[in-house]
Amino acid sequence: MIKNWKKFLWPYQQAVNELKVKFRGLRVSYLDQTNHSPIEFVTGRVKPVESIEEKLTRRYVSEELIEQDLQDIAGIRIMCPFIEDVYQVIDVIHSRTDMTVVEERDYIENDKPSGYRSYHMVIEYPVYQYNEEKKVVLAEIQLRTLSMNFWATLEHSLNYKYPADYAPEIKDRLKEVAQKAYELDVEMSAIREEIETSHKRQELTKNLKQ
Amino acid sequence: MIKNWKKFLWPYQQAVNELKVKFRGLRVSYLDQTNHSPIEFVTGRVKPVESIEEKLTRRYVSEELIEQDLQDIAGIRIMCPFIEDVYQVIDVIHSRTDMTVVEERDYIENDKPSGYRSYHMVIEYPVYQYNEEKKVVLAEIQLRTLSMNFWATLEHSLNYKYPADYAPEIKDRLKEVAQKAYELDVEMSAIREEIETSHKRQELTKNLKQ
Amino acid sequence: MIKNWKKFLWPYQQAVNELKVKFRGLRVSYLDQTNHSPIEFVTGRVKPVESIEEKLTRRYVSEELIEQDLQDIAGIRIMCPFIEDVYQVIDVIHSRTDMTVVEERDYIENDKPSGYRSYHMVIEYPVYQYNEEKKVVLAEIQLRTLSMNFWATLEHSLNYKYPADYAPEIKDRLKEVAQKAYELDVEMSAIREEIETSHKRQELTKNLKQ
Amino acid sequence: MIKNWKKFLWPYQQAVNELKVKFRGLRVSYLDQTNHSPIEFVTGRVKPVESIEEKLTRRYVSEELIEQDLQDIAGIRIMCPFIEDVYQVIDVIHSRTDMTVVEERDYIENDKPSGYRSYHMVIEYPVYQYNEEKKVVLAEIQLRTLSMNFWATLEHSLNYKYPADYAPEIKDRLKEVAQKAYELDVEMSAIREEIETSHKRQELTKNLKQ
Repeated sequence: MIKNWKKFLWPYQQAVNELKVKFRGLRVSYLDQTNHSPIEFVTGRVKPVESIEEKLTRRYVSEELIEQDLQDIAGIRIMCPFIEDVYQVIDVIHSRTDMTVVEERDYIENDKPSGYRSYHMVIEYPVYQYNEEKKVVLAEIQLRTLSMNFWATLEHSLNYKYPADYAPEIKDRLKEVAQKAYELDVEMSAIREEIETSHKRQELTKNLKQ
Repeated sequence: MIKNWKKFLWPYQQAVNELKVKFRGLRVSYLDQTNHSPIEFVTGRVKPVESIEEKLTRRYVSEELIEQDLQDIAGIRIMCPFIEDVYQVIDVIHSRTDMTVVEERDYIENDKPSGYRSYHMVIEYPVYQYNEEKKVVLAEIQLRTLSMNFWATLEHSLNYKYPADYAPEIKDRLKEVAQKAYELDVEMSAIREEIETSHKRQELTKNLKQ
Repeated sequence: MIKNWKKFLWPYQQAVNELKVKFRGLRVSYLDQTNHSPIEFVTGRVKPVESIEEKLTRRYVSEELIEQDLQDIAGIRIMCPFIEDVYQVIDVIHSRTDMTVVEERDYIENDKPSGYRSYHMVIEYPVYQYNEEKKVVLAEIQLRTLSMNFWATLEHSLNYKYPADYAPEIKDRLKEVAQKAYELDVEMSAIREEIETSHKRQELTKNLKQ
Repeated sequence: MIKNWKKFLWPYQQAVNELKVKFRGLRVSYLDQTNHSPIEFVTGRVKPVESIEEKLTRRYVSEELIEQDLQDIAGIRIMCPFIEDVYQVIDVIHSRTDMTVVEERDYIENDKPSGYRSYHMVIEYPVYQYNEEKKVVLAEIQLRTLSMNFWATLEHSLNYKYPADYAPEIKDRLKEVAQKAYELDVEMSAIREEIETSHKRQELTKNLKQ
């Protein structure tokens, strides 16, 4: 087994630290330049050693393949106010040349059976180690709205404390909350559009009167 | 007018920095000791100078009274997973001797006309300045669930970009989203209780069989 | 042995985090208010588990007594520009009511046989845990000038890489560097005083002429 | 004049934030992999607006040329234990492809008339802004030993508080301290080499005996 986890995990920790600074900085850039940031807040973590070991065992992953097979050792989560913002940040990530998207899954359009919604991207990201050597690591970026994050956080908290299988009735109720939370996102986007349209109409009327 | 805002604001910035470290540390303590933290994440900010000046003018606050009248120059926001967690953190704050609660408003039980929900506390908090002098400042702590935070963040974002008065129809729709978001909180708490009860029942059955 | 080091160390980590924010904030307060801060920079660390275990074994410390006997599980280091600044910060620490000094050793006046110079204080500092319980922990604060820090850092780096006993000749040379580094501190303080006196004389002359 | 300094300075602040995380991470990588890091600590700052304005006026720099002419709007400082470490970090910086060195000045070999010693590099560094646009900014990296940093910090502190011209005698004394501080660096490197050689000799003897 991997003996020195600290050494093994350094490139992933470094990727997480750099990506957090990059996306948090991007939020500030948006707020300085426009009146709205599509990024509300950003978190990051390196997968705990126990979770990595558990996953290796469960999936029969050989040690040599860890770094290709476990795409979420480095994990970044980006919370966005509106659904449209999620897709805007996705475009931004694609446009950058300091990271390369290698995989994407849209669990917003196609929610998981549990009701879970988020957009998952796997990127390649280079870090520079002590020996002047560049190492490209995989990192997972999860993007979601605040409403999706509300549901995912609480569901995770319940699962974490009571990992036993829930009764089907409980599963159904959880899924229904996920669906309703999503509908609130859709309604907030609709309200936003309404306000924008009405605002533009007013501006137009003002200009015509002058 | 206040000439050196940097000097004036230092105690507030210091209070925000210390309180953030304290409540973020508390989250870690809960996660280390139990399987659940009533604190999900913590943010803090010092009120921007322009907002302070605007409020002084609008409310005719004399400069000598700024520090008593503006209770939110230092602001901390604590996001909690479940509604019960909010009330648990409130108890924790009351129990601490490094800060003193001087005012409280429960906008969770009694939501504002807009639909806004949060629990607001004003505390006194001591900081130690360059000249060996202790200064007690007021700080506002806002506590809310992730669901309440979803609504408040998006509503603020809309208000910030389009500060004009909304049409009554828009106000009603926003308020309805707030209400529905709150119902999701209530439902998640109910699901949590259900799972806990069922978990305890199972433990009991297991023990009886032995 | 202690099974859950993470739980055991939390109060110490929390103390380090809070003390770092407090002393770093103090630096900003000095810079905002005067033209000089007696604090240049602040570092902190929790003693690594291996070092704690090694010390327990070496000193035959029983586990119940760890928390009284190991006074440096939480460690803060404050680097000061001038020697006088060190003593000013010591006064500031004594004046604060959010920490209590319980022990002091002046290794500046009385350097260690190796040549090491620093001022060591042990303080009691309260932290608030997950269960509404206050815990008072011991923390060590080391204060030194940048020049003392230069020597101590390099000496530690050599010791860490080559822990074997040095030849007496090497020890003498290291001690001589420590002594010379200290003389540079003394000379810089003398220069500072000279400049201050000459500055005051000029101000006086200016005022007399008016 | 530049109206919105916050907007103007964002790319520089972002560069500083990213570079700090990168060089601080590099230190951890060295400590994890070897027993010595050539980086002791890293600081960074964006040039204060008043200093930029003052420099523009003093040097008659037109606004369009600010970004080419002021190479230190973004500034990073890397403190190294030994002189050799400084040159090792310089090599590391040259080897990286996420930044490009465009200028270098060796004030260690060729100290300034004041006695000041440091190695200065100007790099080009890309940041990604809100509008999917990449912007390459200049940043200055200063590298110095802890001993050089001791002198430079104290000299700056004196200059900052008493900016008037010093008497020639004071200048000479300051320069002499700089020279002596540098001699301590040279002596510590010599001691280090001595210890390394003696260590290798011992290892060799041990191996021969086996």
